[in-house]
Amino acid sequence: MYTTPIVRNVSRTTLTPSAALLERVQRPAYLKRLARPEDLVPLFKDDDYIGWSGFTGVGYPKTMPTAIADDIESNNLQADPATKKKFNLFVGASVGPEVEDRWAALDMIARRYPHQVGKEVAKGINAGRIEFADKHLSMFPQDLTYGYYNLHKKHGDPTKPLDWAIVEATAITPEGHIVPGASVGATPEIIQSASKIIIEVNTRIPNLQGLHDINQSFLPPHRQPYLITHPSDRIGSTAIPVDPDRVVAILESTKPDNTGLNAPETDSSRAIAKHLIQFLEKEVKDGRLPRSLLPLQSGIGNVANSIIGGLADGPFDNVQVWTEVLQDTFIRFFDSGKLDFATATSIRFSPDAFDHFYQNWETYKNRLLLRSQQVANSPEIIRRLGVIAMNTPLEVDIYGHANSTNALGSRMLNGLGGSADFLRNAKISIMHTPSTRPSKNDPTGISCIVPFASHIDQTEHDLDVIVTEQGLADLRGLSPRERAKLIIAKCAHPDYKDLLNEYYDRALHECMKRGAGHEPHMLRNAFKFHTNFMEHGHMKVKNWD
Amino acid sequence: MYTTPIVRNVSRTTLTPSAALLERVQRPAYLKRLARPEDLVPLFKDDDYIGWSGFTGVGYPKTMPTAIADDIESNNLQADPATKKKFNLFVGASVGPEVEDRWAALDMIARRYPHQVGKEVAKGINAGRIEFADKHLSMFPQDLTYGYYNLHKKHGDPTKPLDWAIVEATAITPEGHIVPGASVGATPEIIQSASKIIIEVNTRIPNLQGLHDINQSFLPPHRQPYLITHPSDRIGSTAIPVDPDRVVAILESTKPDNTGLNAPETDSSRAIAKHLIQFLEKEVKDGRLPRSLLPLQSGIGNVANSIIGGLADGPFDNVQVWTEVLQDTFIRFFDSGKLDFATATSIRFSPDAFDHFYQNWETYKNRLLLRSQQVANSPEIIRRLGVIAMNTPLEVDIYGHANSTNALGSRMLNGLGGSADFLRNAKISIMHTPSTRPSKNDPTGISCIVPFASHIDQTEHDLDVIVTEQGLADLRGLSPRERAKLIIAKCAHPDYKDLLNEYYDRALHECMKRGAGHEPHMLRNAFKFHTNFMEHGHMKVKNWD
Repeated sequence: MYTTPIVRNVSRTTLTPSAALLERVQRPAYLKRLARPEDLVPLFKDDDYIGWSGFTGVGYPKTMPTAIADDIESNNLQADPATKKKFNLFVGASVGPEVEDRWAALDMIARRYPHQVGKEVAKGINAGRIEFADKHLSMFPQDLTYGYYNLHKKHGDPTKPLDWAIVEATAITPEGHIVPGASVGATPEIIQSASKIIIEVNTRIPNLQGLHDINQSFLPPHRQPYLITHPSDRIGSTAIPVDPDRVVAILESTKPDNTGLNAPETDSSRAIAKHLIQFLEKEVKDGRLPRSLLPLQSGIGNVANSIIGGLADGPFDNVQVWTEVLQDTFIRFFDSGKLDFATATSIRFSPDAFDHFYQNWETYKNRLLLRSQQVANSPEIIRRLGVIAMNTPLEVDIYGHANSTNALGSRMLNGLGGSADFLRNAKISIMHTPSTRPSKNDPTGISCIVPFASHIDQTEHDLDVIVTEQGLADLRGLSPRERAKLIIAKCAHPDYKDLLNEYYDRALHECMKRGAGHEPHMLRNAFKFHTNFMEHGHMKVKNWD
Repeated sequence: MYTTPIVRNVSRTTLTPSAALLERVQRPAYLKRLARPEDLVPLFKDDDYIGWSGFTGVGYPKTMPTAIADDIESNNLQADPATKKKFNLFVGASVGPEVEDRWAALDMIARRYPHQVGKEVAKGINAGRIEFADKHLSMFPQDLTYGYYNLHKKHGDPTKPLDWAIVEATAITPEGHIVPGASVGATPEIIQSASKIIIEVNTRIPNLQGLHDINQSFLPPHRQPYLITHPSDRIGSTAIPVDPDRVVAILESTKPDNTGLNAPETDSSRAIAKHLIQFLEKEVKDGRLPRSLLPLQSGIGNVANSIIGGLADGPFDNVQVWTEVLQDTFIRFFDSGKLDFATATSIRFSPDAFDHFYQNWETYKNRLLLRSQQVANSPEIIRRLGVIAMNTPLEVDIYGHANSTNALGSRMLNGLGGSADFLRNAKISIMHTPSTRPSKNDPTGISCIVPFASHIDQTEHDLDVIVTEQGLADLRGLSPRERAKLIIAKCAHPDYKDLLNEYYDRALHECMKRGAGHEPHMLRNAFKFHTNFMEHGHMKVKNWD
């Protein structure tokens, strides 16, 4: 039986590695640390700081978190304050619901940064059981290494922000470095920040060596420029460096990434995509964009799917993609011959699309790179490349501020993600949304165009274009007064147009009277759409008195 | 008599250049285009798009804009719609009031981007006579060259965003390139964007050749990394390239930069500086900052003066500065021996400090560089260097969103400036403000800590530290609920503490009831501080019912 110097008090039986594992782990010393997850469970203490690999539900550890949850559930540990365990959990973005959401349901999460997806996690955050802060995804890894998240850490090595890194690998190099799965996210910095590392080698997912570009991340004043001027430029190696002395255990995992289906397109998402592609065609015609466009970023969801689908059938050739996440439609985009190269920090395909992708690996592997989220979402590169960024908000206001995170100003959905990394720095910053969403009692009960966004994540200084199924408002070079009229005219749903125009006209009149008409508001009524919704279940306010 | 191919219909008498001018203009061909400003006035047409050099009231053209205003005023042109002229005016930031504010008072400005300082300009913006949009100062020059500001231009060369560039020089090189005054700002891109260029050679200000680092600015997909890893790194030449064929005229100017005094320190500004320096000392002690800190950015105003003054007396040696503007106290900082190197896009000294600076030029010249605002405010470099950014807002809310621009949500003061360029990308993002400001009827009538900022320019995702004379709140790694309690406890004025705590407690209670407690708000009361101020002249609300 082998134990590392760091972890002595674990009972382990000697395990024989599977043939699959032997093929994947090219550093034999690691195999001596082969363990069963249930044997490691006792190592995890209440209030531990834990980092996981994973991004948008791909590449996360599956067996160790499950074993910890199994132990807590089967022994009913949370019922007694003396045995209750709550952890501080840090992951690049979201992970599969069978681990993260289960941890939340078992009230195992004290703190969770910087993004999440899952009913139970959101419930815990909004009920005050989970301390959550969303953060620009480009900044989360650097703030972690800066020591900003362990300022109030009470135990463990004070020089390390995390007690644990639990990371998935599809292979381990002879140097002991980690070849990740289909996401990189914050894994390099999580590994760098952790006292103890557990590696889950996933032998069900193919060995993805060559898919990743892993650069070294320095702290100021030693940071260097990212020497990338094209989406296909490589600046690093193909595996994540690891200090072998901190590797506590190796596990074998055979569980797939638990992704669901991509959001299906709708008439509305197709209408939005049509407006957008027409806009891009005009930009090319007027000489403000090259014929092959500039590298595209597109978010997650059905509008993003419609846009990418539209581009696969569309008028632009030799397109490049610089984005955060690739969805299913990118396969169609590749197969159309119109997409030359794509780079992201994660591939979030549905299970069927992953099967197709892995089976046709030779076709795709030279046209794709995955990078860390610090690089993929880097303001430096997004601005240099002149990325065209497209994202969905919850709501946009008449002056061009957008809410990406909190419903009615207070209820957290998933978090900011990388939206602001891209929208602040892109050459063209686009937000697309249906003009309305249904409420319980009204098919157009929620207007996505509001007088004042109830939470602001993207400011008026960051957005160039707003588009709904109704039309597209090009805000570039316009003053707030000009923007308001255009957004209402082009983007608002007919059910809300008069209400919004009346808000604007009255606000203008009142503000002009007191010499304050730059961005006219009636602050007493600024959230009346929202308070009306809370009272009556829809935003159709009776009047502005 | 000489006329350029572009401008034929101007009557000019042959002018003899002064000895001072002959010394400054090293390209003799330009001297043939020597003109008197009054002779050029007829060239300027209604609705022309005009760019000026200048940044924070330094390095702007003084004679040509004055001549245009003189003509309009003395001939009463604005009284008749047939002779009325309104111009679209683009300047890196603000310029001297004797030109910009006078233009505004004469209603000569149709549109003005992206920043301004002046009573009459603000009045015109808030009265709806001037279309104004503030923009991140790092982005304004690129958006200008992208063609975003001339989308609705009605006449002139459609391939050029501007009809005119009017720029100040302190010398002209043999190649015809421009050595600017004590600011660079957006001048390189304004020159690049203009059909016709008028150069005012200022022979009163010393020839500042060697002070500037002017790099070439490319458009995507041809942009290159800024290869700067230290504030003193040079990546360009000492003068701004100009296409000589577009130079329409040369003028001689002998007017000084019309800067006023710097804002004097107060007890409050000194208290804020003290909290901040203690905080930085702790960061060094805990190993999160090097002993010489990281490059500093500080804004304009008395708090900035107190901080820089405090650093001149302070515990840190070999300090570097990477900032937008240098104020008077930087002279003291240099003279203290504690400041090694400073770089900015503008030196905004008071007249006396400028005299001292120019007289001791040899002492300072190797410890200073001025760059274009696209570089000085570049997210790429700010993030790479790990800048410590410090700026003043109008108000901050309990969750850490800040208003930098619009009083009571609607009345524009000066604009966003570079605050968000720095605060989004800095390693430590600090906002400092007095906890209250006086209103007409109450010495603490305005609380700078509010439940919901009435305009949001900096989001909760961008700020690390809030500091008032009351104390300092370190928000790093905290959730919104944790931040609210800390900001109220550490930063709010005692007159408002109970009110803010009650707002938070009630909002928390209400939001928890509906499972929406991530960032608790009572939207119906979110702006009650502000509406109370509009009704009663102070923010001391009676209750939250």
